[in-house]
Amino acid sequence: MAEIEPFHVMDLLARARALEATGRDIVHMEIGEPDFITPAPIREAAKQALDAGKTHYTPAMGLPALREAISDFYQTEYGISIAPERIIVTPGASGALLLALGVLVNPGEQVLMTDPGYPCNRHFVRLLEAEAVGVPVGPESDYQLTRALLEQHWTADTTAVLLASPSNPTGTVVSMDNLVSMHSVAAAHGGRLIVDEIYHGLIYDGTVDSALGVSDELFVINSFSKYFCMTGWRLGWLVAPVDYVREADKLAQNIFLAAPTISQHAALAAFAPESREILSRYRDDFRQRRDFLLSALRELGFDIPVTPAGAFYLYADCTRFTNDSYAFALDVLAKAGVAITPGRDFGAYQSECHLRFAYTTSLARLEEGVARLATYLRST
Amino acid sequence: MAEIEPFHVMDLLARARALEATGRDIVHMEIGEPDFITPAPIREAAKQALDAGKTHYTPAMGLPALREAISDFYQTEYGISIAPERIIVTPGASGALLLALGVLVNPGEQVLMTDPGYPCNRHFVRLLEAEAVGVPVGPESDYQLTRALLEQHWTADTTAVLLASPSNPTGTVVSMDNLVSMHSVAAAHGGRLIVDEIYHGLIYDGTVDSALGVSDELFVINSFSKYFCMTGWRLGWLVAPVDYVREADKLAQNIFLAAPTISQHAALAAFAPESREILSRYRDDFRQRRDFLLSALRELGFDIPVTPAGAFYLYADCTRFTNDSYAFALDVLAKAGVAITPGRDFGAYQSECHLRFAYTTSLARLEEGVARLATYLRST
Repeated sequence: MAEIEPFHVMDLLARARALEATGRDIVHMEIGEPDFITPAPIREAAKQALDAGKTHYTPAMGLPALREAISDFYQTEYGISIAPERIIVTPGASGALLLALGVLVNPGEQVLMTDPGYPCNRHFVRLLEAEAVGVPVGPESDYQLTRALLEQHWTADTTAVLLASPSNPTGTVVSMDNLVSMHSVAAAHGGRLIVDEIYHGLIYDGTVDSALGVSDELFVINSFSKYFCMTGWRLGWLVAPVDYVREADKLAQNIFLAAPTISQHAALAAFAPESREILSRYRDDFRQRRDFLLSALRELGFDIPVTPAGAFYLYADCTRFTNDSYAFALDVLAKAGVAITPGRDFGAYQSECHLRFAYTTSLARLEEGVARLATYLRST
Repeated sequence: MAEIEPFHVMDLLARARALEATGRDIVHMEIGEPDFITPAPIREAAKQALDAGKTHYTPAMGLPALREAISDFYQTEYGISIAPERIIVTPGASGALLLALGVLVNPGEQVLMTDPGYPCNRHFVRLLEAEAVGVPVGPESDYQLTRALLEQHWTADTTAVLLASPSNPTGTVVSMDNLVSMHSVAAAHGGRLIVDEIYHGLIYDGTVDSALGVSDELFVINSFSKYFCMTGWRLGWLVAPVDYVREADKLAQNIFLAAPTISQHAALAAFAPESREILSRYRDDFRQRRDFLLSALRELGFDIPVTPAGAFYLYADCTRFTNDSYAFALDVLAKAGVAITPGRDFGAYQSECHLRFAYTTSLARLEEGVARLATYLRST
C-alpha cells in the first residue's frame, strides 16, 4: 500500500471544496468525467428494467444481449468482426484492466506503459505484485510508445505493454502503423498489448480505428463512462484473445461476480440512434471546447506542442511560468479560483513542468477560467 | 491464475441449463442469491435518481448521505455507534473484502479462514499473493473458528482472520463470546479480525449482534445483496478501524473509483419502514423454507448436526449416500432434476461427503425438489 500514491488532485479538490464552502466560485478544469448527464433514452431503459424487476445478478461475463450489442457496435462503427464470446462486460474499465492484468501478468513481471499516463494503471500492476515500468514519452512520439521504445525497454521480465489511445492526460492517439509495429515487437518477445480505448468515441479530428483491427491476439479495454457519459454506472468491457476468455471468466466470477445489472440493461439503449444523436451533440460540444481552450492556453504561453485528437484533456508544458507545477496549481487555485491537475499525478517524467487541463465544463466556464488565468499570469 | 479454481457449481449449472433447454424441469437449490426482486420502494428511489440525472461518480467512499444512513442503521438495529467516517461504500462485498485485505495483508502473509468457507475469499487472498490458510471446522465448533483454533494455527506470518457470520455454506453464526475471545487472540498477536456479515439481516432464531460491538479495531464487511435483496446492484460496505480509512480510500480511488451511483441512491430507501416491512416478510418466507427443508432433508437421511441460524443454506453431510458428493450432485441433477452444490466448492475438509442446499426458491419448489430426491434415493 505504501507504494500506491493518492491522487494529488484529491488534495487540491478538497481545497477547492473548502474554498467553495466559504462562497468562492471555482472553475473546475481538473475533473476527469463528462459534465453531461447520461442521455435520457439510456436512463429510460434503466427505468424499464427496474419496473420489470431486473435486479438479480447477470452472468459473470455480462448479459448475452449486451455482449452481442457491443459486437454489433464493432461491426457498424469500425467494420470489424469481434465474436460476442470474446467480449466480457465489467464493472467499469477498472474491472476490465484488472481482468486483463490478472490473466496476463505474474508477480515480478514487468508491464511497460507511458510516463505520463493514467496513474491507476501502475497501481493496478503494483497490486498484483508486478512491476509497472514507466517509459518517458514526449511530443516527439505524440506522448505514445513506439516500436523503438519497446525494443529499448523490453527485458526478460516484460510480459505486457499498456497503451492508451486517446491517452489520459495527453489526448493523443496511437497511429495504426505504430500499433502494428508495436504488436509485432510484443509478439516477437512473447508479450501482449493491452490497449485502453476508453476515450475512443471522443475523437475530434478524423476517425480512429480500434486496435482490434490489428490482431485478434491483443487485449482492448473500453468503457461506457466517457463517450457514452455513463461514469456513475460503472460499466466497461474487455475484449480478450479467445484463449484467455475462460481464465478471465473465472477471475470475474471470483473478484466481482458481475457488472451492475441495471447498468447493463441501460447500456443496451446506448447504441440506439436516439442515444447516438445526443452523444454526437455532446462530442461536438467537446470539440468546440477543445478548440477554444487549446488556442487560449497557447496564447497565454502554455506550450502544447501536439494537438490532441481526442479525450477531453490538454497536457500543457508550463515551463515558462514554473518548474513546480504542483505549487503552481495550488497557487492558481488559491488566487485565481481555477482548479487544474498537477503533472505529478501522471508520472515522474517532466511532471513538475506540466499541468493537465480538462474541458469537462461549459464553454462559458472555460472562458471564465481562461480570463482568470490571464489575470493571474499578468500579476505574477 | 492456475491456483484459482472455477466454481464447480458453474459446470453443474451449465448442465442444468442444457437440460432445461431440452425441456426438462430443474429445481434449483444451488443458487446463492435471493429469488425475491428488490422491494419496490428501493426501485422507485432509483427511478427518481435517474429522473434527477444522478449519473456522475460519487466520492470514492460513497455518498455521504448513504454512509450516514448506514451509521444510523447500526444505531437503530444494533444500538452501536459507528461514525460515518469509518464506513466505506463499495461495489458489492467483493469490493469491501478487496479493500480490507488490500490495506491489511502483504504478500507472503497468511490469512486464517474456515474450511468449509466461501471460495472467493481464498482466491482474493491469493490474488494479493498472500496465503489463505483453511482451518478445518466441523459441527463441534458450529463450523466456526474458535480461540483454540486460532492459537493452534497462528504463525509468525499470520496477519488476519476472516470470519463469516452467518457463514456460507453452513448458515451458522459466531457467538459474541467467541468473537471477543478471537479478537483478543488476534490482538495479542498483532493481527486483525475481518468479519463478513453479509447475511446478517437473515437470522431466524433470536437476534445476533454485529461484531462491531466487540471492538473498534476489527473490520466488518456487509452488503445490500442478501437481506436487502439487491444482488444485481453491486453494493456493499466496509467498516474499517479509523487508522485504516485513509488507506482504504486511496485504494478505492485506484481500484474501482466508486460504487455505482444509482445503486447508492436506491439504497438510501432500503432503510425506510416501507422497505423494511417488505424485507421482513421475505425473511419470514426464508424462515419457513429453512424449517421445511431442514426437517425434510434430515428425514431423508442427510445429517445436518447444527441447526443453521441464518443465511439461506443448509450444509448437509451425505455420507449415508455417497463419498463423492460431486458425482452424487451430477447424478441427482441428471436423474432427479434437482441442482445442488457439491462440497468441493467450499474447501477440502470432508468436502466429498457434503452438499450445500440453498433455499432460494419457493416453498412449493422446495417441496417438489424434496419429493424428487426421495424418489431418487429410494431407487438407488
